[in-house]
Amino acid sequence: MDMVQAASIAKKASILLASEQKDSKNLALRLIAEKLLEKKDEIIRKNQEDIERSKKENLPAPLLKRLKFDEKKLADVIEGIYSLISLPEPVGKKLLATELDEGLRLYKISCPIGVIGIIFESRPDALVQISTLCLKSGNAVLLKGGSEAMETNRILTEVIRSATDEAGIHSGWIHLLETRDDVNHMLKLDDTIDLIIPRGSNDFVRYIMDNSRIPVLGHADGICHCYVDKEADIAMAVDIVHDSKVQYVAVCNATETLLVHSDIAQVFLPALKQKTDASAVELRGCERTQAVIPVQPATDKDWKEEYLDYILSVKVVDSLEEAIEHINHYGSGHTDSIITKNQNNAEKFMDMVDSGNVFWNCSTRFSDGFKYGFGAEVGISTNKIHARGPMGLEGLLSYKYKLIGNGHIVSDYAANLRSFNHKPIDE
Amino acid sequence: MDMVQAASIAKKASILLASEQKDSKNLALRLIAEKLLEKKDEIIRKNQEDIERSKKENLPAPLLKRLKFDEKKLADVIEGIYSLISLPEPVGKKLLATELDEGLRLYKISCPIGVIGIIFESRPDALVQISTLCLKSGNAVLLKGGSEAMETNRILTEVIRSATDEAGIHSGWIHLLETRDDVNHMLKLDDTIDLIIPRGSNDFVRYIMDNSRIPVLGHADGICHCYVDKEADIAMAVDIVHDSKVQYVAVCNATETLLVHSDIAQVFLPALKQKTDASAVELRGCERTQAVIPVQPATDKDWKEEYLDYILSVKVVDSLEEAIEHINHYGSGHTDSIITKNQNNAEKFMDMVDSGNVFWNCSTRFSDGFKYGFGAEVGISTNKIHARGPMGLEGLLSYKYKLIGNGHIVSDYAANLRSFNHKPIDE
Repeated sequence: MDMVQAASIAKKASILLASEQKDSKNLALRLIAEKLLEKKDEIIRKNQEDIERSKKENLPAPLLKRLKFDEKKLADVIEGIYSLISLPEPVGKKLLATELDEGLRLYKISCPIGVIGIIFESRPDALVQISTLCLKSGNAVLLKGGSEAMETNRILTEVIRSATDEAGIHSGWIHLLETRDDVNHMLKLDDTIDLIIPRGSNDFVRYIMDNSRIPVLGHADGICHCYVDKEADIAMAVDIVHDSKVQYVAVCNATETLLVHSDIAQVFLPALKQKTDASAVELRGCERTQAVIPVQPATDKDWKEEYLDYILSVKVVDSLEEAIEHINHYGSGHTDSIITKNQNNAEKFMDMVDSGNVFWNCSTRFSDGFKYGFGAEVGISTNKIHARGPMGLEGLLSYKYKLIGNGHIVSDYAANLRSFNHKPIDE
Repeated sequence: MDMVQAASIAKKASILLASEQKDSKNLALRLIAEKLLEKKDEIIRKNQEDIERSKKENLPAPLLKRLKFDEKKLADVIEGIYSLISLPEPVGKKLLATELDEGLRLYKISCPIGVIGIIFESRPDALVQISTLCLKSGNAVLLKGGSEAMETNRILTEVIRSATDEAGIHSGWIHLLETRDDVNHMLKLDDTIDLIIPRGSNDFVRYIMDNSRIPVLGHADGICHCYVDKEADIAMAVDIVHDSKVQYVAVCNATETLLVHSDIAQVFLPALKQKTDASAVELRGCERTQAVIPVQPATDKDWKEEYLDYILSVKVVDSLEEAIEHINHYGSGHTDSIITKNQNNAEKFMDMVDSGNVFWNCSTRFSDGFKYGFGAEVGISTNKIHARGPMGLEGLLSYKYKLIGNGHIVSDYAANLRSFNHKPIDE
């Protein structure tokens, strides 16, 4: 089946899925969980095939690690599905109810977005998480996974589709796409696809954003900052900056740049260096940093770079305002943290840093849908339109206005025969 | 000042405006209302200049009518400002509060989007409505009005800026752009401008959507439908279809296509024709319509056309499902109404028609922010991402996550030294 056909079938299926009842969606989710467990051996065997083939093709070790789908990961996604079942039904919620006039009632009702195109990296667990989130929120989904996970993705999609078939959901709601060409076709289908969520490298996400009229949600860069204020607790600041940098360097919410107030730099920087040296972090500092501790010199390029590695750029600033300006200028609007004992400074930082996640006295590594308690997440958005920050079910929903009358026409209001009263409806 | 400079100043002002308190914004709004009244004579004189010049330049009569800004319109916008002052503060609302672990508290807080670019038609009252909505929601705004309203727009912007200056708001929050070149520059400033809202002709809006990486909210076409079900009350259906078509033909929520169930066509169509003939509406019908009443033949092109005129295309369908499919295929996702006494049919229609506004037994002309009780509106969106339908303050807001800890680091959770509890915070 080609991409255009798949998208058109998904569009039709999305209309039906939008009006599926809570119970049939939850039944489908339960069947998915059961069938995944049933087919455990086959799924793991297929994943082994992917791993063997990828080893021969010299896939780098970190990617091989992400590709692996073993009993533990299967158990995790199944647990995720049961927690999704327990969440309240997200579709059909009354967000607003107003009587416009006698017998003329307006309701704002949550509804699915429609057809979501998701392009994701090699992790097969992402396929299960994303497609079950789409199912719960009533959206059809076009999935494009990494070719290295081809066999695993195929069997997972098959298992999911057969489970939802059994629950009476139109099978057109889920499609697995396999070629790079499919992605390029996807970007052109703005009549059919309502939203694209790309997960992957910066360059890749930026390419998607630049080459489609379809709205794109996600993040390209994750240039996160820690700012150590002059009123910071030194030991706490060392721990938070260290954790923000090294707890997992390859992820978007790892800190890339440290800003330090000049009044505290003399004390703080040597303490930090001792701790980061132990984790083999390369520090790149501005001239004022170089005057305090031995570091590689940083250039303007360093303030714009997402290292995703054991590298941290360091800049000494003279004020909270300078730190905020630096972050708003060089940051990517992802996650930024202030370490300070001063509440006013913390509040000013959180109000004026224009990022989706603004933290006080904690690690930037906390910005994540699971840690926030959203259950699974489809991604993290640095958009300010629609969903921002970690996106769970909510980012997959839109709403519509339903207006119910009894022959009401606008001429009567224009002629002052009737008038609006706009009373909230309590139901 | 050129566009790039204006946008960069607006960006800086937006950061300050985002943390302005409710009282200073409401004071600024009150001063705007007062100064508009104070400068009444000068504003009306400037508007007269615009009208005289435009008459000489042969501006069409309907545009001249929209350009007019008289005592009545001034009183309306001033009334609008006072109703905006009375609305609750939209910024800083707690949308979610969760304790992730002891001493680690997550808050989802509403915040402004940032810098909004608005391109609007000749109506000067739109300038006041839009800029005061932006002010209340804490957004900086770049306004591009029609050149025919140049003098009026200038004095209105001046009055608004001097009022907000007096209230201590950074004057960079509002800029009036005057040339067509400014619009083209605006479309390229995706680093600075967060959202564009274009109001105007279909072609113009589509041009904006196709030529910018900045998110665009609004609607290009408004191809609205009435569907007269077989179980419709004939008299009610005639009134609703007539009102939906002729109450104001030049607007996006006027009905362009009528769908009629075949079981009722013989009775309904002659009754409708009698009423629309009296309003000189040209009917263009499918073959089955032509067999019942004398009409111009409709072609496939008619189902896709927004007439904005006294023309209505008519199609006979054999089922509710056929009507829904027609609307989802040819419609623009704006507003569609079913006329029926059958509740199941009405609910199916409202669930499955994929439009922002789905109506039952009332005129499509009701889809409008004022009629919905939202106060002023910035426009009507047919997007499914972010705001859908009539957009008031809510469409101008985003949110950010604030996380407040006390030295919390992720390593402790990875090492199972601590764990998340995810408890809602009642405050």
